[in-house]
Amino acid sequence: MKYFSKALLSENSSRFNANLINSCTGYKSCNIIATKSSKGITNAAIFNSVMHIGSNPPMLGFIMRPLTVARHTYDNIKETGCFTVNHVTEALSMDAHQTAAKYGNNVSEFSKTALKEDYLHDFHAPFVKHSPIRLGCNYVNEYEIKENSTILMIGSIEHIYLEDDLVDASGHILLEKSKTLTTLGLDGYALPQHLYRLSYAQPDTPLKKL
Amino acid sequence: MKYFSKALLSENSSRFNANLINSCTGYKSCNIIATKSSKGITNAAIFNSVMHIGSNPPMLGFIMRPLTVARHTYDNIKETGCFTVNHVTEALSMDAHQTAAKYGNNVSEFSKTALKEDYLHDFHAPFVKHSPIRLGCNYVNEYEIKENSTILMIGSIEHIYLEDDLVDASGHILLEKSKTLTTLGLDGYALPQHLYRLSYAQPDTPLKKL
Repeated sequence: MKYFSKALLSENSSRFNANLINSCTGYKSCNIIATKSSKGITNAAIFNSVMHIGSNPPMLGFIMRPLTVARHTYDNIKETGCFTVNHVTEALSMDAHQTAAKYGNNVSEFSKTALKEDYLHDFHAPFVKHSPIRLGCNYVNEYEIKENSTILMIGSIEHIYLEDDLVDASGHILLEKSKTLTTLGLDGYALPQHLYRLSYAQPDTPLKKL
Repeated sequence: MKYFSKALLSENSSRFNANLINSCTGYKSCNIIATKSSKGITNAAIFNSVMHIGSNPPMLGFIMRPLTVARHTYDNIKETGCFTVNHVTEALSMDAHQTAAKYGNNVSEFSKTALKEDYLHDFHAPFVKHSPIRLGCNYVNEYEIKENSTILMIGSIEHIYLEDDLVDASGHILLEKSKTLTTLGLDGYALPQHLYRLSYAQPDTPLKKL
């Protein structure tokens, strides 16, 4: 097996280490977080850190990088209390990736890419048109991770919109059918093929593929 | 589009909501976290919440459910200061899923499944044999998410072991080649097919597929 110790990593370039460490935890989610400032300037930003926090009440989280440079997503959420989370498909992926470019303060990524704003149920923040699964969230709290000044943002899930026929009778969302992507490392995109669901695990009981 | 509001969710069963909310944020990582108590009892547990926290210094995180029931992973990490993170492949996935069963206090999941302990470089916690990518981590800190009493655990990445030829010249790990799985919802498993990597995003510069 190939081996890297923490000490050995210091001999590599920071870009090599960033690629290695960003891919060593496995696959990540792939979402566009969209917001709108109180002045009406919209923002779209790709995030690979959106995570499940809890079902009851329904909450999600994501990691913000340190606030040492302008973070419009963070500022808009703090100003307006809301944001949307939009699944990325292959058709949206190039534009989603392009949102990571450093545009100026008053420039919306929606004006610089083919992404289109969509407003649903009078929610302040825009949803992303053509995204098959979209969540409208309210800001709940934030936790600074002191070790590197990143921030875990917590939001409540207030609205869920899905294209038709994506939810089965058990509540499970068919992510293969929605063609939701997963991300790997800093800049990789992949399309998962569904293998199976497995029955609830109990001691001394064989699992079944559902 | 199908629509669920937070209020509408209260009309569904808690299992339906758990499936829906657990799958609405997209794909998740798929890892076995392995530990060993100070008395020498090993533990293996599947986690779908292992996430990237930072590259410099290299750190990862994962979400622990509330400590209202026995959590051997948490207790062992607090006792010994270390744990391992092991990627799950299809060959490991049934045994990985089975680790979620509620075994007794002195029963190791390694004794109840086909998962095998592997000890590398005198690290206290066991690695999982046949896992293609394995990380040895030290406990760094924890943050209680007060909204639902879950805990964000933070670990430093001290050792990285990978099967041969999984890291390219840029440091990027070839997760399609390692056959690492991704998870969806509470109990779904999927195998991603690599699409592409995209060049660094800059304003007014076309992206290239790498």
